[in-house]
Amino acid sequence: MKKIIRKNTKRVYIGNVAIGGGAEISVQSMTNVNAYNEKAIIRQIREMEKVGCHIVRIALPDLRACDKINIIKRNVKIPIVGDIHFDYRIALKAIENGIDGLRINPGNIRDKEKVKTIVKLAKERRIPIRIGVNAGSINRRKYPVVDAMALVNSAMEHINILEEQDFTDIIVSLKSTDIFTTIEAYEKFSNIRNYPLHIGITESGTRFYGTIKSAIGIGILLYKGLGDTIRVSLSTSPIEEVIIGYKILQVLGIYKNNIEVISCPTCSRAEYDVERTAEEIERVTSGIKKNLKVAVMGCIVNGPGEAKDADIGVAGSKKEALLFTKGKLIKKIHPDEIVPEILNYIKSIAD
Amino acid sequence: MKKIIRKNTKRVYIGNVAIGGGAEISVQSMTNVNAYNEKAIIRQIREMEKVGCHIVRIALPDLRACDKINIIKRNVKIPIVGDIHFDYRIALKAIENGIDGLRINPGNIRDKEKVKTIVKLAKERRIPIRIGVNAGSINRRKYPVVDAMALVNSAMEHINILEEQDFTDIIVSLKSTDIFTTIEAYEKFSNIRNYPLHIGITESGTRFYGTIKSAIGIGILLYKGLGDTIRVSLSTSPIEEVIIGYKILQVLGIYKNNIEVISCPTCSRAEYDVERTAEEIERVTSGIKKNLKVAVMGCIVNGPGEAKDADIGVAGSKKEALLFTKGKLIKKIHPDEIVPEILNYIKSIAD
Repeated sequence: MKKIIRKNTKRVYIGNVAIGGGAEISVQSMTNVNAYNEKAIIRQIREMEKVGCHIVRIALPDLRACDKINIIKRNVKIPIVGDIHFDYRIALKAIENGIDGLRINPGNIRDKEKVKTIVKLAKERRIPIRIGVNAGSINRRKYPVVDAMALVNSAMEHINILEEQDFTDIIVSLKSTDIFTTIEAYEKFSNIRNYPLHIGITESGTRFYGTIKSAIGIGILLYKGLGDTIRVSLSTSPIEEVIIGYKILQVLGIYKNNIEVISCPTCSRAEYDVERTAEEIERVTSGIKKNLKVAVMGCIVNGPGEAKDADIGVAGSKKEALLFTKGKLIKKIHPDEIVPEILNYIKSIAD
Repeated sequence: MKKIIRKNTKRVYIGNVAIGGGAEISVQSMTNVNAYNEKAIIRQIREMEKVGCHIVRIALPDLRACDKINIIKRNVKIPIVGDIHFDYRIALKAIENGIDGLRINPGNIRDKEKVKTIVKLAKERRIPIRIGVNAGSINRRKYPVVDAMALVNSAMEHINILEEQDFTDIIVSLKSTDIFTTIEAYEKFSNIRNYPLHIGITESGTRFYGTIKSAIGIGILLYKGLGDTIRVSLSTSPIEEVIIGYKILQVLGIYKNNIEVISCPTCSRAEYDVERTAEEIERVTSGIKKNLKVAVMGCIVNGPGEAKDADIGVAGSKKEALLFTKGKLIKKIHPDEIVPEILNYIKSIAD
């Protein structure tokens, strides 16, 4: 598999997680439970940690929500970024209370002096700031047409304030619901600055449509070598967002520590239930951190040949299934044995 | 939204469906029921027609399966392509029996004289041929390393035979399970010939993972302007494949006759069930052929602003929801009224 040539960005740390400068592309998400219910927040972050979330963002709608940062921090492992809109004082309190990173939106914290106050404290405490531009909340008086340059210029307004204060622990995002605007904005921005990029398609929609939209948008950016940390924004649970984020990275060969199930679309030639078998193998192997390819092929006609590059494969025939490794027949088994046989094989391979 | 600049390809017809030369990008799929059960095949094709499938492929495993072509043709509206492997006589019989197009695999019909026989009859009957290269079934003695050039060269072997006979009603596909190999193969091929391209990622996997993989692979190709007809290959029903195909085209602004639901990922600020509401709107509007954008936003803080470009949007507040059109407040409604109000609005807009 071809490797993507990533743009070389500056390295910034959110807590202990490196972003940019060749660091592993991290997967992040955001809690969606009540901002004052620390128990629910902690529970949700722990679930996100289980599926490999590297960084979590929490909304801080007001000063009161910042009171929960401390207890949340003590109860979870991954770094926490505070999402700040409108009121710069929330940012100050969040830093005081131990937040690991800030996201501020140039569209709704526009006062230069207030931004400077945030930056001064962030610099003292070495807290990175994401300049998180969102097409929907951009200043329309200033940018009546929200195109890629409007997103970039809106980000640059804040970046200039930060740079004037010699603050460069900056991460940038330039999100729109339109994938073309988003891609063009990241491309244009990456020509003028090398800050690490947080990428995603904002408000991409439902689990079904939004997954397709995010996969295409994030996929094209990563393919172009842009993106140091990703967030899939869906109207569904943040745990799902993390899982889908990993799948996007897996398709692009960026995340490899996973079992990939390739399976044929089935045609009239299929001689056992390929769909159920592939789904089942994907399910039982989902927690296994190995870089292996499993092929689930419907028929003996094309199956073994097409499964030649898979680490293990199965092809159906009338009343039995043929088990292959690297395209070579190992044995004939009953269709019911396919899933356990493949699982055993995967487990037998050294990590 | 930016428009994709499509590569200008030759126009070829499968039945009455134009492929290439600026024609609308068509969506196709393949039946997966028993090849000898014409009733099941007809039933499945009719379901595919309902969701907008333009072209359907059926596997023709042997000569006997060709006996069903006639009755299938009489009972469905869309053109039918026969999928032929190994035996060139099946291709001949399929043409005799009224097939609208052929797909032959250079990996397993290798004999030049046999290919010439197919081409001679296809030319007489004006039946187009897809040269459908598949990485898995490529001739490994000839191409020990199955990279992009191997896919292109394997296709060119057959294309040369066809061109020698002055046959140019050719469609080409160069599929691999690896998206990088696939993309590179299509790019390289499109530099040397302008035949229309059938694109897809072969054996992309389960409905969940395969959708993400296909969206990224097909999405990148379309973004690059390559692809005249698409097929999503998943281990699930062909009806799903067609629906997902349309969603991919919709994300890229290629298919516009559809309601797009953009919805926020929800955070602690959301004040009603955004996920359920967005899913419900997507469901109830799925059959409506209008180019409209619906925004489902959790909160009043960012919602109305971010929904400014939507044709209609809703943002939640404590016990009510605010209904917007083009970012302007129309009225306050009860959350239970969101779905019917939006549906009524959509229905009220002229086609």
